[in-house]
Amino acid sequence: MEQVIHYEDYALGHVRVTTGRTITETDFVVHAGHTGDFFPHHMDAEFARTLPFGQRIAHGTMVFAIGVGLTATVINPVAFSYGYDRLRFVRPVFIGDTIRTRVTIAAKEDDPKRADKGRVVERCEVLNQRGEVVLAADHILIVDRKPA
Amino acid sequence: MEQVIHYEDYALGHVRVTTGRTITETDFVVHAGHTGDFFPHHMDAEFARTLPFGQRIAHGTMVFAIGVGLTATVINPVAFSYGYDRLRFVRPVFIGDTIRTRVTIAAKEDDPKRADKGRVVERCEVLNQRGEVVLAADHILIVDRKPA
Amino acid sequence: MEQVIHYEDYALGHVRVTTGRTITETDFVVHAGHTGDFFPHHMDAEFARTLPFGQRIAHGTMVFAIGVGLTATVINPVAFSYGYDRLRFVRPVFIGDTIRTRVTIAAKEDDPKRADKGRVVERCEVLNQRGEVVLAADHILIVDRKPA
Amino acid sequence: MEQVIHYEDYALGHVRVTTGRTITETDFVVHAGHTGDFFPHHMDAEFARTLPFGQRIAHGTMVFAIGVGLTATVINPVAFSYGYDRLRFVRPVFIGDTIRTRVTIAAKEDDPKRADKGRVVERCEVLNQRGEVVLAADHILIVDRKPA
Amino acid sequence: MEQVIHYEDYALGHVRVTTGRTITETDFVVHAGHTGDFFPHHMDAEFARTLPFGQRIAHGTMVFAIGVGLTATVINPVAFSYGYDRLRFVRPVFIGDTIRTRVTIAAKEDDPKRADKGRVVERCEVLNQRGEVVLAADHILIVDRKPA
Amino acid sequence: MEQVIHYEDYALGHVRVTTGRTITETDFVVHAGHTGDFFPHHMDAEFARTLPFGQRIAHGTMVFAIGVGLTATVINPVAFSYGYDRLRFVRPVFIGDTIRTRVTIAAKEDDPKRADKGRVVERCEVLNQRGEVVLAADHILIVDRKPA
Repeated sequence: MEQVIHYEDYALGHVRVTTGRTITETDFVVHAGHTGDFFPHHMDAEFARTLPFGQRIAHGTMVFAIGVGLTATVINPVAFSYGYDRLRFVRPVFIGDTIRTRVTIAAKEDDPKRADKGRVVERCEVLNQRGEVVLAADHILIVDRKPA
Repeated sequence: MEQVIHYEDYALGHVRVTTGRTITETDFVVHAGHTGDFFPHHMDAEFARTLPFGQRIAHGTMVFAIGVGLTATVINPVAFSYGYDRLRFVRPVFIGDTIRTRVTIAAKEDDPKRADKGRVVERCEVLNQRGEVVLAADHILIVDRKPA
Repeated sequence: MEQVIHYEDYALGHVRVTTGRTITETDFVVHAGHTGDFFPHHMDAEFARTLPFGQRIAHGTMVFAIGVGLTATVINPVAFSYGYDRLRFVRPVFIGDTIRTRVTIAAKEDDPKRADKGRVVERCEVLNQRGEVVLAADHILIVDRKPA
Repeated sequence: MEQVIHYEDYALGHVRVTTGRTITETDFVVHAGHTGDFFPHHMDAEFARTLPFGQRIAHGTMVFAIGVGLTATVINPVAFSYGYDRLRFVRPVFIGDTIRTRVTIAAKEDDPKRADKGRVVERCEVLNQRGEVVLAADHILIVDRKPA
Repeated sequence: MEQVIHYEDYALGHVRVTTGRTITETDFVVHAGHTGDFFPHHMDAEFARTLPFGQRIAHGTMVFAIGVGLTATVINPVAFSYGYDRLRFVRPVFIGDTIRTRVTIAAKEDDPKRADKGRVVERCEVLNQRGEVVLAADHILIVDRKPA
Repeated sequence: MEQVIHYEDYALGHVRVTTGRTITETDFVVHAGHTGDFFPHHMDAEFARTLPFGQRIAHGTMVFAIGVGLTATVINPVAFSYGYDRLRFVRPVFIGDTIRTRVTIAAKEDDPKRADKGRVVERCEVLNQRGEVVLAADHILIVDRKPA
């Protein structure tokens, strides 16, 4: 669905939460095959048993990519993604955990290079089924200001 | 392959470059299906033709995940990934581009919370076949210091 | 996104069109692997060259599944899918075609077995990049009436 | 395997049953990724626990596509698929259920537009491991009559 | 399809040829992800350009697995696979080549350990669209003799 | 990682063991879809229950392809793969088993056709989590001799 949202229309403090998705063993295998990262922490149940967590843990890049993917429901044609700051892997994600993403409009600031645009910071927090934050990152959007 | 590398053994300024990988239309389709992000910028060739770049562009999360995956060749059992800073989508990646990742040891610093560990910052730059940086990010590793 | 829409709120004749998606060779390969249908009409470019269309054609079940998938953007918690009538494979879909789905509220009728629900018929037409219908089907939804 | 079967050679009432296939969590994940339908009924174990069935249920389009795929063992070069009537989602399919498809030649009729062809209706019933019908549909084949 | 074929019923010199399948870039990507072999010969178009063949070449294990998979149409419940001898990678397979497999009953011999069974050697040759052998292997089946 | 190893530098009797990988139900489904082999021994849990092993068993071609894939960590640019001898399916692999591959330099011999190269035989044994050999094969490498 497309929806035009200008810089002025982002409301500081606004929160939305996505639908949930259970992270399956399939996701582990698909992510390893997609990225080429077959480290035994993710792929070897016997080895993982010897680690502190005692079981396979999700790739950080997967929790990030799926966590961000969950937010991809509305296309804003006057915004583009500049990058992410402070991406942190806060807690492990295990096979069978269910995640959803909470997006908070955390900051708005002038764009130093583009007078007709502003920066919107979306605080993205991926939560597990117990409501614990497992990953956090600040998404920086560059958004058009309303035409004068 | 496993290789123990302590904090002291990371050499500031050391550079390594991974093997390359051609980003295919398959990778676009797999990433959309893996993350649920089917935005037409990535998936609709007709729509993409109307955009400035004139063709489908890779998901930023895919360039990040595959770019990081390319570096996953040596397991250091005394390090773990803390997160990433300043992840930036610098240039678009198109179907058929070939990427590799250049990793530079950019900083070393004390860990504020853990006296027996230090932080190593790996500057990760994903390059295309023309040597242009398409994505950059600072990877923060927490690494054991050598036992006294 | 969840949105409650009761039987009374479906407007006869209402039309919506989904975003588009380019059907890739990857989709052909994934669908064959997912369903086990490796018929050479879909999978063998040499054989397909000898057929009237001169190239590989998409599985009908794929055009149906992806065409329906494109409509899956809003969850209506008071509706469920009963089935489809008059599913027809109208034109072939080739590698590189871009499809989107047009959904028209085509009929509303009492549910013969459930007084508190009604049937809504969504006419689903999958269109290619030239606006031609490639697949059509009548989707039957069973929807709650508004509480009295 | 290719086998020429003319309209006249389809025997009314003939029944065949395919081999079986266990529907796995992997199939759920692959189908969501293939179609873009990530509705929580299929993908979110926590949410599904709150629904009447208490667990994730298979996409109707998946049961249809795999159920039809199971029948794709013999290629009849003088037949093509016209479409399906009365596709019905009769019972839910859960992770771990094993399905096979029973195909009954249910009707034969003249093709209104093509004198040299006839229509054969294959009643397709997808069965679970308890022999219950989970999905039913009437497949309409257009088949060449024998040359005079 | 299941078909009982006893040792005595395998005819020396009998030949069958499977349907064909075009090996796509998707298959390369799927095989790399499935096996973890991302060697640049298969995955890096820029690097492959510098090699004698000038383009990416298929994994040998993929040509073998798909070549064997093409033969998997009839289940013989009184046979099992013992292994393969003389598996040879004869010619490269490129993206877009179409392969099929020719199976010749090449030898029959007593099973040294099992009096009630015999060994059947199926000579498997994977052919490309020019009829050239790209891979060859001798498949050893252990098959029940007819009950006395 | 690339590493030049000439014929003279392969040490007879040298052994290396790869990291491990748990074979998941996902791998079964992916391999079936990749190869087109949907035999019920691999895919139908109900049917498999009636067999001697009582559960689904991995495709032999999958254990081979993944077992070989596990060894693909170092690229030797002066070697190429000639083929495999004595590939044997020694024990079944079940969902949840963890495999790794032990590679022993088992033989070195002149290449009958190429004076500047030699043949190195790598004995590949795929082991399960109990250290049992589940698959064995002799990999034949053709390797450059050191320049005179």
